Amino acid sequence: MEETENTVQRPLILVTNDDGIFAKGIRELVKAIRPYGDIVVVAPDKPQSGKSHAVTLDMPLWYMVSKFDDADRAYKCTGSPADCIKIALFRILDRRPDLVISGINHGSNASINIVYSGTMGAAMEGAIHGIPSIGFSLLSFSSDADFESAATVSARIVEKVMQRLDNLPFMCLNVNIPNLPVDELKGVKVARQGRGEWIEDFVRHFHPSNKRPYYWLTGEYHDLEPESPDTDSRYLDEGYVTVQPVTVDCTDYGAMRKMKEEGWWD
Amino acid sequence: MEETENTVQRPLILVTNDDGIFAKGIRELVKAIRPYGDIVVVAPDKPQSGKSHAVTLDMPLWYMVSKFDDADRAYKCTGSPADCIKIALFRILDRRPDLVISGINHGSNASINIVYSGTMGAAMEGAIHGIPSIGFSLLSFSSDADFESAATVSARIVEKVMQRLDNLPFMCLNVNIPNLPVDELKGVKVARQGRGEWIEDFVRHFHPSNKRPYYWLTGEYHDLEPESPDTDSRYLDEGYVTVQPVTVDCTDYGAMRKMKEEGWWD
Repeated sequence: MEETENTVQRPLILVTNDDGIFAKGIRELVKAIRPYGDIVVVAPDKPQSGKSHAVTLDMPLWYMVSKFDDADRAYKCTGSPADCIKIALFRILDRRPDLVISGINHGSNASINIVYSGTMGAAMEGAIHGIPSIGFSLLSFSSDADFESAATVSARIVEKVMQRLDNLPFMCLNVNIPNLPVDELKGVKVARQGRGEWIEDFVRHFHPSNKRPYYWLTGEYHDLEPESPDTDSRYLDEGYVTVQPVTVDCTDYGAMRKMKEEGWWD
Repeated sequence: MEETENTVQRPLILVTNDDGIFAKGIRELVKAIRPYGDIVVVAPDKPQSGKSHAVTLDMPLWYMVSKFDDADRAYKCTGSPADCIKIALFRILDRRPDLVISGINHGSNASINIVYSGTMGAAMEGAIHGIPSIGFSLLSFSSDADFESAATVSARIVEKVMQRLDNLPFMCLNVNIPNLPVDELKGVKVARQGRGEWIEDFVRHFHPSNKRPYYWLTGEYHDLEPESPDTDSRYLDEGYVTVQPVTVDCTDYGAMRKMKEEGWWD
């Protein structure tokens, strides 16, 4: 049977985030990428920052229809960002999405932040199932940040990826966007993940009744290679949008080679 | 001042897990590695399987002393496995540990399981802070699994790592142990992470009162490269203990090279 115009489907884009379905970042993202396909949103019903690639094994999940301007369909789900992708792929959607998009995150996912990031956990979940996936993050933690610039950049990147869907050199991208107006952005750099760590300061408070101490996880980012010219953190500081191609293979191949040479456990 | 015998400290080993401080796996582990240093346990007060590298940003954390045979000190903490490492390093311990150990996990962390694993999230957190770290997992999900073999193997590996602490070719290891008696294990293989995915089956149940559907995340592991001879999954099937050196750098360097060659976003 010859393909008729009726049977040609628009690309399907699955969207999630980790700040929750009511966050400004995901609303601005969907508005900006609307032209590139049918949009289905499956996003957490509450903020899930710092949830990394967590999945919910000890509790059931619920999801329900949610109102969402600019999306074709939207659902809020009780689970983590990675749960949202799983339940979308295996329960909600009736066809395989062409692209998974997560974000726009309120805050940086450059450097070591990627390992804690629910935004990137969701994007990597898409990639595990062989679907090209992109996480977008704006370098501002404000819930009312100005997403105009980040949404414009995100839309341009989505357009470019959609044009080459059949021949992408990557499966997953971590895109970070400086908190600057579009005309002050220096350009886009493909960059590796800079090495860094959070030096934590557990702030102690006391329960008002039983006086037991409790602790808030707060900390300060510490760049472990501030002199390196080619890290994502460095480029972001200089005003570039960074694009990090991401793998879910955690193997340290350099260490593996050395261990084999040294005959560890032979 | 000359160092006297009094001032020589035994190595400090920080231990956590994701099945919770009361799980059999962590108890058997601590018993087995007791000879190699002072042991401080900081572990979740309840099961935290599937919590990946999650950190708790939206709630405070509590910890309190817990009874633990064979450990020098032990604390149970309300957070995730990665939280436990952070609060241990930055609040509880008065010196830097020489080694972080996580496990023994009840269940495999080979192949794609590493990305969902709270056990490995904790080990990777140690590595982020420059402390050699090992996650141990036994290929049995039973809460009452026989850990004799896994504990013996774990102790041997800890001993070997402790002997070479100053010159390790890796910062983090993911060790998986088949559920076999020691004399049936074939040996130890340094192995890369095999490619795989979970094909999920969201089992639907209904709330007894309001009849709303809810879903349990269950699934089946699908090996994406069953013919490859050198993956962790393959070696485990053959009866080998696998040792995967792990990095927290998620950059896909192969994709990065291709993107630069193709001039993406130039």
